[in-house]
Amino acid sequence: MKIITSINEMKEWSRKCALNIKSVGLVPTMGYLHEGHLSLVRIARSENDLTVASIFVNPTQFGEKEDLNVYPRDPEGDRVKLESCGVDALFLPDAESMYGAGYETFVEVQQLSLPLCGQSRPGHFRGVATVVLKLFNIIEPARAYFGSKDYQQLQVIKKMVRDLNVRTEVIGCPTIREADGLAMSSRNSYLSRSERKQAVCLYEALWKAQQLFITNETDPNEYVGAMKDAISREPGLSPEYVRLVDPDTLKDVSVVQAPVLAILAVRIGQTRLIDNVLMS
Amino acid sequence: MKIITSINEMKEWSRKCALNIKSVGLVPTMGYLHEGHLSLVRIARSENDLTVASIFVNPTQFGEKEDLNVYPRDPEGDRVKLESCGVDALFLPDAESMYGAGYETFVEVQQLSLPLCGQSRPGHFRGVATVVLKLFNIIEPARAYFGSKDYQQLQVIKKMVRDLNVRTEVIGCPTIREADGLAMSSRNSYLSRSERKQAVCLYEALWKAQQLFITNETDPNEYVGAMKDAISREPGLSPEYVRLVDPDTLKDVSVVQAPVLAILAVRIGQTRLIDNVLMS
Repeated sequence: MKIITSINEMKEWSRKCALNIKSVGLVPTMGYLHEGHLSLVRIARSENDLTVASIFVNPTQFGEKEDLNVYPRDPEGDRVKLESCGVDALFLPDAESMYGAGYETFVEVQQLSLPLCGQSRPGHFRGVATVVLKLFNIIEPARAYFGSKDYQQLQVIKKMVRDLNVRTEVIGCPTIREADGLAMSSRNSYLSRSERKQAVCLYEALWKAQQLFITNETDPNEYVGAMKDAISREPGLSPEYVRLVDPDTLKDVSVVQAPVLAILAVRIGQTRLIDNVLMS
Repeated sequence: MKIITSINEMKEWSRKCALNIKSVGLVPTMGYLHEGHLSLVRIARSENDLTVASIFVNPTQFGEKEDLNVYPRDPEGDRVKLESCGVDALFLPDAESMYGAGYETFVEVQQLSLPLCGQSRPGHFRGVATVVLKLFNIIEPARAYFGSKDYQQLQVIKKMVRDLNVRTEVIGCPTIREADGLAMSSRNSYLSRSERKQAVCLYEALWKAQQLFITNETDPNEYVGAMKDAISREPGLSPEYVRLVDPDTLKDVSVVQAPVLAILAVRIGQTRLIDNVLMS
């Protein structure tokens, strides 16, 4: 596995792939890799001639009071994992080369960035869209792979690609879960042992929504009520949002009909976790 | 010359060029072509294997009260001119295919878009940056050519390309002028015969600035005063801005030292004209 830290070197590597008509699959990450990331790598490998993973904890997608400085990192562990999954190149730029002095250009997907996580994290999706477009321009992947746990992020990136006529195909992949149902996330490492036990209620809430969907319940308030119940059963948890939305527009539905997305964000102590399930 | 109106067909054409390792030079225009545009085509032809011109009167760069609906158009005349200049492909998308229902993604170069034309045309450079990035993604040019009359536009596009790691090289080309010095512009067609005579004072103002520069004048107020004098000599003209700025940051200079840019926007009746001269 080739490790590349320079943007120009990465561009040259990508250009050589293009000249040799090799398709590149990209798995963009912020590191501290778990099985969710590695599942993206395996899918990328199966669909492309070459696979690139990137690790970049992108400062422009963190708010001022967010966890940029404490975001978990494990560069050596990540390298071993990616190497063992057969990644061809690992792109590891630093913040200075990605956002040098005088950096001032941002990409905004206006409507899709507003609701849900956009409410509590203003500017977050602007940072996500911007860094993803930069990575696409540097690496020129035929396809790029994102997990569905970050559903709104996936939709924002898909919309950006469509609106800006970007050549890269964006592929959403299934959320990978722990044995008890908790969606894998680098931020799970923030949880204390007791918080980790409580965290399973996010999955239980989504499971309840699915049970209602199977019974053809059409009132979204029933779903939201049941999900909030599941979360409030755990003391000290505060739901940031619990919603039933249209999977394309992310707007609340007034009547439940397939496809519909149950989506939530919950704070457990200092940790903010998100999850969702698409019902169709 | 191949005429392409479909985005997908344009993308396929571009992809074939890439596979054949043919470099593409792009001249993006809003049509109603004059010698300024054609000079860009000639430079593009001399530096690339293939040359694409685009004609698209981009709605997102016009303000609500601006001249989108009356912007001059001459599709047949443009076609003949481009054909005779040896353009290989002409890209003619319509507004519906460029900005379909639900379009919501915009690119903003925050600081460079603020001063000068940005003051009277809020959102203008956001529209410019967005459409140029779209054209770059569709056509994938090795190089793209822009005139220097629209100096701020050129700087915004250069900054966007640098910040977002776009592969296209942006090339600024000299302003082409009428015999009396007026910078060529599609908007000159709005001028009445008497306004056309008055319009030469923009060039005279810039010429006065150059004379002061030759005498090593260091006080920017002297330049601005002389330029405003030249414009105010014509009755009924209203200068929107007349400035001496740093050519990179577009901020006012306090002491004149090379390189420095004299730049102005003036209203003549209903017509808004811009011009500039780089002194070094």
